[in-house]
Amino acid sequence: MKKSKLQFKTPDDIEAVFYEAFMHCDADVMAGLWAAEGVVCIHPGSGAIVDYKTIIRSWGNIFNNAQRNGIKYTVVNALVSNDLAVHVVAEEMLSSGRVSAVVLATNVYRKFDSGWLMIEHHASLVQHRSEGQTLQ
Amino acid sequence: MKKSKLQFKTPDDIEAVFYEAFMHCDADVMAGLWAAEGVVCIHPGSGAIVDYKTIIRSWGNIFNNAQRNGIKYTVVNALVSNDLAVHVVAEEMLSSGRVSAVVLATNVYRKFDSGWLMIEHHASLVQHRSEGQTLQ
Repeated sequence: MKKSKLQFKTPDDIEAVFYEAFMHCDADVMAGLWAAEGVVCIHPGSGAIVDYKTIIRSWGNIFNNAQRNGIKYTVVNALVSNDLAVHVVAEEMLSSGRVSAVVLATNVYRKFDSGWLMIEHHASLVQHRSEGQTLQ
Repeated sequence: MKKSKLQFKTPDDIEAVFYEAFMHCDADVMAGLWAAEGVVCIHPGSGAIVDYKTIIRSWGNIFNNAQRNGIKYTVVNALVSNDLAVHVVAEEMLSSGRVSAVVLATNVYRKFDSGWLMIEHHASLVQHRSEGQTLQ
């Protein structure tokens, strides 16, 4: 089944919907915001997935095993140039209102004729912090 | 002390020098290939460093504690648009000729008047691999 793509006018628009889909475990929306080709997804501690179908399946697996009930995200850095945008985002995973884990993500979006789509999500768990490091 | 910036004509040029500096623990070269502002560095398992001086100091600390003797890097994905380039790179850390760890990095480069400089390095350790995941 070929998922129809959602349409986004700005990188901020698609990022908001990405985190809505992530928070609500919505696999259909997640499938609609990734580009079909030239994509890379790296979940925390994992290898790189470079195939659209496998990326969407990996999000389905994450959603099936989700034990959190909220994500607060803060943009650490945002860059846009022509048809490419790179955001670094701090994701605070919430369970029962408390932060259970902090993940840093590099999200890359590309502008197609129909609008912006996600082409990369690289996430890593923050396990230790040292001098000069910040999440925001 | 203000380090003078190196000059790179392409994202591939600066990436090659970045890994040369990484492999040879050359803090001066590392200092010369990062932009002075708008930078983000995330070492494996760590928080985000968004200040040039702290980023360069963090590389110095890594070089002081280096126990490997080689890095083999493979570009998983490369994108360029106008003055922004995003590379996903698999880094195989070698000790005595063997791969001791695999790290995935998103490297972002920006084109300035003087040439390309590094503006982001987001690295994460590959701790597990599952179906459909690849390093290349």
